[in-house]
Amino acid sequence: MEKLFNKITDNERLKKQLNFIVELDKLKNIKRRSLLIFSKKNERENDAEHSWHLSMLALILFEYIDSDEKIDILKIIKMVLIHDIVEIDAGDTYCYDEDANLDKAEREIKAADRIFNILPEDQEKEFRDLWIEFEKRETEEAKFAAALDRIQPLILNYCTDGEAWIKHGIYAKQVIERNKHIRDASEKLWQLAERIIEHSVELGYLKR
Amino acid sequence: MEKLFNKITDNERLKKQLNFIVELDKLKNIKRRSLLIFSKKNERENDAEHSWHLSMLALILFEYIDSDEKIDILKIIKMVLIHDIVEIDAGDTYCYDEDANLDKAEREIKAADRIFNILPEDQEKEFRDLWIEFEKRETEEAKFAAALDRIQPLILNYCTDGEAWIKHGIYAKQVIERNKHIRDASEKLWQLAERIIEHSVELGYLKR
Repeated sequence: MEKLFNKITDNERLKKQLNFIVELDKLKNIKRRSLLIFSKKNERENDAEHSWHLSMLALILFEYIDSDEKIDILKIIKMVLIHDIVEIDAGDTYCYDEDANLDKAEREIKAADRIFNILPEDQEKEFRDLWIEFEKRETEEAKFAAALDRIQPLILNYCTDGEAWIKHGIYAKQVIERNKHIRDASEKLWQLAERIIEHSVELGYLKR
Repeated sequence: MEKLFNKITDNERLKKQLNFIVELDKLKNIKRRSLLIFSKKNERENDAEHSWHLSMLALILFEYIDSDEKIDILKIIKMVLIHDIVEIDAGDTYCYDEDANLDKAEREIKAADRIFNILPEDQEKEFRDLWIEFEKRETEEAKFAAALDRIQPLILNYCTDGEAWIKHGIYAKQVIERNKHIRDASEKLWQLAERIIEHSVELGYLKR
């Protein structure tokens, strides 16, 4: 692909940007565990679809942030758009797979080094900084972005008869442990998550 | 699904938002004509992946807007995130299919009525207004969002050996006609589009 872009532009900056845009296409092939709600073939969601869905959740659910600070919605959207790009190399690590999570951070840092470096230096820095901020969950924006990244798979699991949870034998306490930091961003969304989890136990989607 | 959310919340506003979030999942099943660059099975891109990719292009290529006015990047991103939601009902209309394009506007307005109305009234208005602004291509933000919506499939077609163009027997002049308004937003991106089209003719991806 790099060779291809040599044919159409001499602008080195634009070439780097085009190479990154092409690299991003790989995210459309990284499958997650969640199932698509309306798929007839039990298809799994991919990271590109997930990232788009999260950015829509950001627009729709923004009003439920508890913080009184001035919140930068654009930054939240940027974070959810780019938060899974490292999975192009590192793959999707199932959140309830303890072994796979041991070296997750290491794999993802290596991935960030390779992938973001395709960009021109200023954009490489911007994207890497956003990704690190998201991962650290210290700012209000990062806390809310992370909350969206938790609540979306809950909704998908709940609306697909808990199939992915049942398949992997997940316990309610694992889901609570995984999702409890939704509360750091939004009491309302955490209440919603709790009700989804409770009802999923009642329905047999999650083990008690 | 509506019944399901009755079980977990009494908040009518939140219920509407959840129903819309679930409705959005359908966009992951709406296939476009462009092929994925790295798919081994010649898979076609869907609207959710496309919308995510466009929002990434917005972040990366923002610097190429020609306008001297102050540009609202958040609005551009909102527009590209929501611009294809109407295709949940109206389907993807291939841009070079003249017959299908005759009633496209009518189908899409009907779709917008049904789908955006799932939201609470204030959000319904916000999303509909953004969609109409995008469609009209009068503001600088809408012109750039539309330019991204043109350049992304060009890149995908170019990087997949022009397969979709070849399959549908597309002529260079059709692609120029379809894409020439990229120039209303960015001279640089239009030059890029022209070079992609020229080289695609040389490579036999497009008919002369």
